[in-house]
Amino acid sequence: MPKSGIEGKARQTGYIAKLLHKKSISKEFGQALKYIKSNTEKLKLEEKAMVRNLYHEYERDIKIPTKLVTEIVEVSSRSQKVWEEAKRSSDFDKFEPYLTKLVKLKREVCEKVGYDDSPYDVLLDSYEPYMKEKTLDKIFSSLRDDTIKVLGKIEGSKVKEKIGKIKIPSIPIDVQKELNKAVVADLGYDFSSGRIDEAEHPFTTWITTGDIRFTTHYYEENFIQALTSSIHECGHSMYEQNHDKKLAFTGLDEGISLGIHESQSRTWENQIARSMAFCKYFIKKARKIYDKGFRKISADDLFLILNEVKPGMIRIRVDEVTYNLHVVLRFELEKKLIKGNIKPKDVNEIWIEKMKEYLGVKPKNDGEGVLQDVHWSSGLLGYFPTYSLGNLYAAQFCSKMEEDIQDIDSKVEIGNFKPILKWLTDKIYRFGHIYTADELCKKVTGKKLDSKYFVKYLNKKYGKIYKFL
Amino acid sequence: MPKSGIEGKARQTGYIAKLLHKKSISKEFGQALKYIKSNTEKLKLEEKAMVRNLYHEYERDIKIPTKLVTEIVEVSSRSQKVWEEAKRSSDFDKFEPYLTKLVKLKREVCEKVGYDDSPYDVLLDSYEPYMKEKTLDKIFSSLRDDTIKVLGKIEGSKVKEKIGKIKIPSIPIDVQKELNKAVVADLGYDFSSGRIDEAEHPFTTWITTGDIRFTTHYYEENFIQALTSSIHECGHSMYEQNHDKKLAFTGLDEGISLGIHESQSRTWENQIARSMAFCKYFIKKARKIYDKGFRKISADDLFLILNEVKPGMIRIRVDEVTYNLHVVLRFELEKKLIKGNIKPKDVNEIWIEKMKEYLGVKPKNDGEGVLQDVHWSSGLLGYFPTYSLGNLYAAQFCSKMEEDIQDIDSKVEIGNFKPILKWLTDKIYRFGHIYTADELCKKVTGKKLDSKYFVKYLNKKYGKIYKFL
Repeated sequence: MPKSGIEGKARQTGYIAKLLHKKSISKEFGQALKYIKSNTEKLKLEEKAMVRNLYHEYERDIKIPTKLVTEIVEVSSRSQKVWEEAKRSSDFDKFEPYLTKLVKLKREVCEKVGYDDSPYDVLLDSYEPYMKEKTLDKIFSSLRDDTIKVLGKIEGSKVKEKIGKIKIPSIPIDVQKELNKAVVADLGYDFSSGRIDEAEHPFTTWITTGDIRFTTHYYEENFIQALTSSIHECGHSMYEQNHDKKLAFTGLDEGISLGIHESQSRTWENQIARSMAFCKYFIKKARKIYDKGFRKISADDLFLILNEVKPGMIRIRVDEVTYNLHVVLRFELEKKLIKGNIKPKDVNEIWIEKMKEYLGVKPKNDGEGVLQDVHWSSGLLGYFPTYSLGNLYAAQFCSKMEEDIQDIDSKVEIGNFKPILKWLTDKIYRFGHIYTADELCKKVTGKKLDSKYFVKYLNKKYGKIYKFL
Repeated sequence: MPKSGIEGKARQTGYIAKLLHKKSISKEFGQALKYIKSNTEKLKLEEKAMVRNLYHEYERDIKIPTKLVTEIVEVSSRSQKVWEEAKRSSDFDKFEPYLTKLVKLKREVCEKVGYDDSPYDVLLDSYEPYMKEKTLDKIFSSLRDDTIKVLGKIEGSKVKEKIGKIKIPSIPIDVQKELNKAVVADLGYDFSSGRIDEAEHPFTTWITTGDIRFTTHYYEENFIQALTSSIHECGHSMYEQNHDKKLAFTGLDEGISLGIHESQSRTWENQIARSMAFCKYFIKKARKIYDKGFRKISADDLFLILNEVKPGMIRIRVDEVTYNLHVVLRFELEKKLIKGNIKPKDVNEIWIEKMKEYLGVKPKNDGEGVLQDVHWSSGLLGYFPTYSLGNLYAAQFCSKMEEDIQDIDSKVEIGNFKPILKWLTDKIYRFGHIYTADELCKKVTGKKLDSKYFVKYLNKKYGKIYKFL
């Protein structure tokens, strides 16, 4: 987006948001909603879901004074600029007053909305409806402990050295574009309902029903970046592209929650595309398009690079084993911040301690530590857990999928992804926002969310690679 | 845009249009407007213009029943599909019932809004505020007669044969992209307030203040297509990019009318880029980027190709001499249609006659005749004249610019377009929609719109090329 358009766009989106907010908390809308809410017997499943979703949001929004909403928007906007500055100069102290202010405002939101156990539940609910701190405590603490165990086993492996020596061939960007397009088409991305563009950061965007686009970013020296991020975004997109057509314009043609959405990007990016079978498919396909470059890398080596485990500082650049420890760390800080158990000024110190404890690494400075992510400066507190929820849901869904589809690997190896997309569509995509995350999880897997599926997946996959099983 | 998104986008834009319409004809808005309208003494120039523009639209919109607006939208939508079909099979009879229906509905609009002289004035006013059929009659009939005279002189020239033999070198699309970007940057297009994308048809779009983008379409075998259409759209864009910043968010940061807007695209595309000086600049620049291709064409030959006059069937593909005859033909048909002087079923026959009379050519079929343009099927009656108004305003403004700027050609030849952009900005762009078209024309040139400037331009330029002066 051209930089001179930023102010105009902010005004436009601000105006639309204001209109939407006004309508969504209007008296007429509230009365209608309350009436339907207490007369749902005759409603169909989809209608009940519409009422449930709308009422859930209404109930929260109506309690938050518009003044507070506006103040948070304004402070966030200023705070982001300060954060950019603070990150550039690696100086947490610059950002700390804004974090203090934002935590205070967010805490006010929690008090206005109200809660049973923890104010943090209110924040979680914006991104992961009905999720509670208590539930996450249990799930994340065993995930943390189990991950640290897996990590310990990997640390001692001699395979690490071997992976470090593999070289990634340079691939011209035009070739990468053609290849990425062909790969996501094979996965099932529907180009009559979307398109791929380029942007600094990969993201998926819902323009309207039947128009779900994503962006990617190509690096000549590292084709794996664009490949994995395209597949990640393709997963988000295919979820949206495959909601039942009859849900269009009902408000139900959307993902259930950020966690469930992330589970679909992770399913395609990690569970499928970081498998040996996918690497075989990919290298064969890639060599057909550009043998000159891709004959320099084997499927085996690609598989090893895609699954290199290496504790690092920056969340968005780390592997699928250590990734969740970055999230758990943030969750542990956030909930204490909101409950007032720790002060914003202490966050940096605790961050450094936890990094050492969980990952054995120490940030060189605040920029690659507590200041690395934009989220807090934008007022997104309670958001981080959804990333790991995505990984956990993905593993739990996929363990069921592997029971249902015979011999997935041999299908993936020949580029036949149809049974996978069909299974995901039948079980998850087509329902849009009809079920809650919890309902969907039970419907698909028969069980509540449990980190054991993910841990089992880690042990199986990485045990094989790092030879510790 | 992916095709599955069409329905969703139609709903979104339809909804926004409805909201806008509702607000713009609301009682509160009308009352406020009427109050200010009768108390304008203390208003500043810009404020007066805001009131004038808003009231002018309000006065029209309030008189058109919402039911009629909706019906026109619906009929147009169906009509466009039938037109596509009719054009494909070159069968005017298929489209005729829809044209009849649309003319009837548009006529109803004219009656509801009211008029002094001709119902056609009401339609003109939507695209060219305050323009009247009577004024156009005078301007267009002398334009038509003078153009036919110029055309007659060209027809007898021996230069025609020479131009037909010039070959356009094939230029790789990547080179064209780089070159077009460099050329519009030289002209003064501000990439921090816009960007260029590719689309089937070139167009300019206003995203928001500070974000004015345009599209182009590249053909390897004919680099002139993308070059001229990029410069055309760049003209539209630079007009929007250079409104005074203080007009942002006032509603005045827009072009005055379609005719004035078109005058700015035509100024850059025709008056400037189809000049010998520009050809010299361009070939020099192009050879620096891709000598291999561009050494095959000289500046002289490019100049001849850019100015080849050849009566043709399709309006959007013809030269600047014959172009206006296509528009005058449509104007003459439209005004009679709306006044009921001719029937939609007779349009095709009259079309063929007038093509023979004005241009000496006969359409092979309805597809390249009366069905060639989408406008009528979309309900755009009264729109065509703005294209020629653009040419006329451009010539009249430029004749003044040539008085004010010394030796324009030598500046253009070395790629120094700054004085031109500065003059246009000072005289036209910065004012946005403060003045009416008529006011602007008098302010800039001291005279009312007159076709003589354009005819003089044609005679001077083409007399030199075709050696009839």
